[in-house]
Amino acid sequence: MRPGVDIEEAENGSPDFMESETLWQTLKSPVYWLSPFIPAAWIVPYFVGGVPADVKFVIAALALIPLSAIMVESTEQLSHRSGEVLSGLLNATFGNAPELIISMIALKAGLLDVVKASIIGVIQANLLFVLGLSFLVGGLTHRSQNFNRRGVRVERSVLMIAAISIIIPSVFDNFVSPEMYQHENALNVCVAIVLLVTYAFNMLFMLKTHPHYYSPKSGGESSPPDNCWPLPNALAVLFLSSVMLALMSEVLVGSVEETARNLGLSKAFIGIIIIALIGGAPESVAAVTMARKNKLDLTLGIAVGSSIQIALFVAPILMLSSFFIAPKPLNFVVGNVGIMIVLFPVMIFSMIAADGKSNWFKGIQLLSVYLIMALFCYFLPDMPNTPIIKP
Amino acid sequence: MRPGVDIEEAENGSPDFMESETLWQTLKSPVYWLSPFIPAAWIVPYFVGGVPADVKFVIAALALIPLSAIMVESTEQLSHRSGEVLSGLLNATFGNAPELIISMIALKAGLLDVVKASIIGVIQANLLFVLGLSFLVGGLTHRSQNFNRRGVRVERSVLMIAAISIIIPSVFDNFVSPEMYQHENALNVCVAIVLLVTYAFNMLFMLKTHPHYYSPKSGGESSPPDNCWPLPNALAVLFLSSVMLALMSEVLVGSVEETARNLGLSKAFIGIIIIALIGGAPESVAAVTMARKNKLDLTLGIAVGSSIQIALFVAPILMLSSFFIAPKPLNFVVGNVGIMIVLFPVMIFSMIAADGKSNWFKGIQLLSVYLIMALFCYFLPDMPNTPIIKP
Amino acid sequence: MRPGVDIEEAENGSPDFMESETLWQTLKSPVYWLSPFIPAAWIVPYFVGGVPADVKFVIAALALIPLSAIMVESTEQLSHRSGEVLSGLLNATFGNAPELIISMIALKAGLLDVVKASIIGVIQANLLFVLGLSFLVGGLTHRSQNFNRRGVRVERSVLMIAAISIIIPSVFDNFVSPEMYQHENALNVCVAIVLLVTYAFNMLFMLKTHPHYYSPKSGGESSPPDNCWPLPNALAVLFLSSVMLALMSEVLVGSVEETARNLGLSKAFIGIIIIALIGGAPESVAAVTMARKNKLDLTLGIAVGSSIQIALFVAPILMLSSFFIAPKPLNFVVGNVGIMIVLFPVMIFSMIAADGKSNWFKGIQLLSVYLIMALFCYFLPDMPNTPIIKP
Repeated sequence: MRPGVDIEEAENGSPDFMESETLWQTLKSPVYWLSPFIPAAWIVPYFVGGVPADVKFVIAALALIPLSAIMVESTEQLSHRSGEVLSGLLNATFGNAPELIISMIALKAGLLDVVKASIIGVIQANLLFVLGLSFLVGGLTHRSQNFNRRGVRVERSVLMIAAISIIIPSVFDNFVSPEMYQHENALNVCVAIVLLVTYAFNMLFMLKTHPHYYSPKSGGESSPPDNCWPLPNALAVLFLSSVMLALMSEVLVGSVEETARNLGLSKAFIGIIIIALIGGAPESVAAVTMARKNKLDLTLGIAVGSSIQIALFVAPILMLSSFFIAPKPLNFVVGNVGIMIVLFPVMIFSMIAADGKSNWFKGIQLLSVYLIMALFCYFLPDMPNTPIIKP
Repeated sequence: MRPGVDIEEAENGSPDFMESETLWQTLKSPVYWLSPFIPAAWIVPYFVGGVPADVKFVIAALALIPLSAIMVESTEQLSHRSGEVLSGLLNATFGNAPELIISMIALKAGLLDVVKASIIGVIQANLLFVLGLSFLVGGLTHRSQNFNRRGVRVERSVLMIAAISIIIPSVFDNFVSPEMYQHENALNVCVAIVLLVTYAFNMLFMLKTHPHYYSPKSGGESSPPDNCWPLPNALAVLFLSSVMLALMSEVLVGSVEETARNLGLSKAFIGIIIIALIGGAPESVAAVTMARKNKLDLTLGIAVGSSIQIALFVAPILMLSSFFIAPKPLNFVVGNVGIMIVLFPVMIFSMIAADGKSNWFKGIQLLSVYLIMALFCYFLPDMPNTPIIKP
Repeated sequence: MRPGVDIEEAENGSPDFMESETLWQTLKSPVYWLSPFIPAAWIVPYFVGGVPADVKFVIAALALIPLSAIMVESTEQLSHRSGEVLSGLLNATFGNAPELIISMIALKAGLLDVVKASIIGVIQANLLFVLGLSFLVGGLTHRSQNFNRRGVRVERSVLMIAAISIIIPSVFDNFVSPEMYQHENALNVCVAIVLLVTYAFNMLFMLKTHPHYYSPKSGGESSPPDNCWPLPNALAVLFLSSVMLALMSEVLVGSVEETARNLGLSKAFIGIIIIALIGGAPESVAAVTMARKNKLDLTLGIAVGSSIQIALFVAPILMLSSFFIAPKPLNFVVGNVGIMIVLFPVMIFSMIAADGKSNWFKGIQLLSVYLIMALFCYFLPDMPNTPIIKP
């Protein structure tokens, strides 16, 4: 973004874009016709009193679509310059910014169960729903798609560490009496620090010592796009669309809880399925788009990278922050349901993605598991005590 | 089978076979000298009053051997025409027909525990016992055997879905109170439908879009056999031997329960080990025979294909049927023992078969796990409440 | 070792070594300057009355370092003659001799919990700590290291069998009432026999039928070392250093319990972490040394081979011996904590090592999991009943 351009203007999604003819060409795509919903999601509640939650929900959901699309476009523009590794990382980072922001707000309000549910829900949604849909959509036009399996093999064991880091404190919780509360907090803080350190080493590995593990194997178009954005524009659009996505997600999440309650859904279903799907909508669109373009390494970078980042970076940061901003500390204790929701996706992902190949049926398999687990959450009744996660 | 040949005659196992000289050549093998036990299993109880269950059991078991052998022979005859994929599929289908028939009868009689035990028992027996014995027998004559690992890698994640579909309702059962009975039934029905749809897509994948994932890698004799049966004969023999196998299995199962009770065996052992082994005897013989002939892709098609079909097709069909034919609906709730009995075989199979190679020690490993789990069932005491599966 | 050389002399670590100039050259390495601690660990408690446990602990720990180093050296000398398979096997055997001796003594004293804790602790320490440190150290000087993945793939399923053999009796224990005590003992004895038979077949597979599965892939120096020891010397040094290591481990273990109690550590932490790390110190040093020399097949032979030997040979032998030498029989029941401590290392090892490649980040991953599980044991409070394993 050039100096002197006002953020306010850029946020409305038009002035900055018009300056660049190539950006404008991009925006002619029909998906951007939904752009008016972006300001509408903000304006409607202010001007029209007593808007029902359902309406807010639909407007915000529609607004997310063009935002996700512009984010995908800007990420792809950057990927031609920075390589797919860094690009996928950028995408995952900006894709998880909404998560972090939403969770911080929920944490401050003391909604610890919702935070925990959405963390495990996002990991599950990324590995099963986003990747499943990507494999299916990609497989409909390509008989078999390839990706760099070396990176995936590293990632599956990192995901296993994430699963273990959630199982260990949950099992510990079964052994301690209330007076051992101090020990439990100490264990959770230590685990959070181990995860953060592991995440830092993972970044070092991906970006410095072994970037070739993550370089693309897929034969997607490696030629630069016809309309190439200037670097600052691409960065600015990526940043701004992330910010808007976060804000829009918040509107959505704020209204989805009431909407869902009206529809008689359980809290587990809201936290683990609805919030996670909405919070991860941008990554979903981006990952599926890349799969259709046969850039499966970018798809995996987004979906798997996002899961790792949630588990090894966002979750520990939230836990450590909770000691300062939340009424009581957040921990990793998620009960047997939470353990299943993290462990099964990691196990089935490990089996399916380890050979560096995908096809439509692999997509169907991942979606089947997602559907079975979503049905489980849907039918699970609300419990009186710590309802979402630990009945 | 030519038109005009009486089914009764064919069932006695001789007239139809004699017509074809090549069939006759086949029947000269010593294993067919046990054929008289086939009619004996039917005749003896009618003519001799008060035959003890033990005697019936032995006669029926001996009768199964020639029936299995002729079924293997006819399947192999078909495999030269239809390719190993379709042949393995045919074999698995006809191998599971007895299972489906026996389970339907048990379901009608309200023996839900026996049905559940035999379903999980068959999956375990196929993955551990049948495959273990095949790898061992094949490995005794071949230093290393190869099979198409692409298909196996797809199948192991399908099996993982099967395991998850059994674990999820079992875990759900721990959370619901009796008044949530409706929710539990609804979850089970939905999971059954997801499994059936996944199974249909699996067929589409195997037979239409990716048959090369299942085409043989092993260098077994691809030349046609010396004595080639006419196609209608091969089909007729396959069909009739399946029917006879089903009937014989029923005699066997009807007598095995009493036999086992006399011998002081627990219900878990009867359901999970004895009934599963007997119901799966035809597949066992077929799979081991193919392994000895170095046609390991056919072995896997039989053993693994059969497990998948039981989990994703037979079990859901039984559950949905139970609402119409059983006194109370069947569900997938199998308790912690049932979860172990499905999950461990799937996990160890995934580890052992993923590289597309087998040797005798892999067979020993699978058999060791089978032995440990059979010992567990053997020593497990009968519980007062839902004894087999959920103590 | 030449005939006529006194064992006493050799045990002091000098006379026999001096005779051979090449041995002497080896001993000039600075690590052997710690050798005086070997006799000191024996002499000090006799001459100085009332030595605190902490002092004994430090002396014995320092004494272990040169002993481990000489053991590594002699194993390497043998590896140039006998091939890495047999060498790794020898190393694992001599590395586990201390374990077996210590456990036998603890068994006789009725410390069944300590025995069980150290068995599962050693498996965990080998797969996570020793292998993690080896991968990390090796990866610091080599961008990527290779090893023979065929052997590792066999070993991971053998380890899975080991995990199942621990889970099955532990689950069984939940189902039986006290009067079923006989059944539980019978199951444990049967499982022990299955494991011993599997271990014997594993040896046959490794040494006779498929040794090429374990032959080195790494490009380490295959040329013989500059200073080549005579075969009898190498064998004698290996044997004597093993004996001394066993004795030294005993001093260490005898003092570590008191030391740890003074420091306020839980029994779970002592058994699973401290004793396992100390008992496995020789293998650790050997495995890491080999990794630094890019002989990763030897590293795996030591770390993984040692785990398999502990699970499939040492543990069953201890159990069967317990009927004769212990006040009450040992079993494999380890509770949920014990199941986790065996299962997670096996699962993450399977994911990380299956592709036959290692790098520094794989080491970090294994160490992270080890750290998380060690923290779990550290914070786990001592329970009144069967404190270490089954709270």
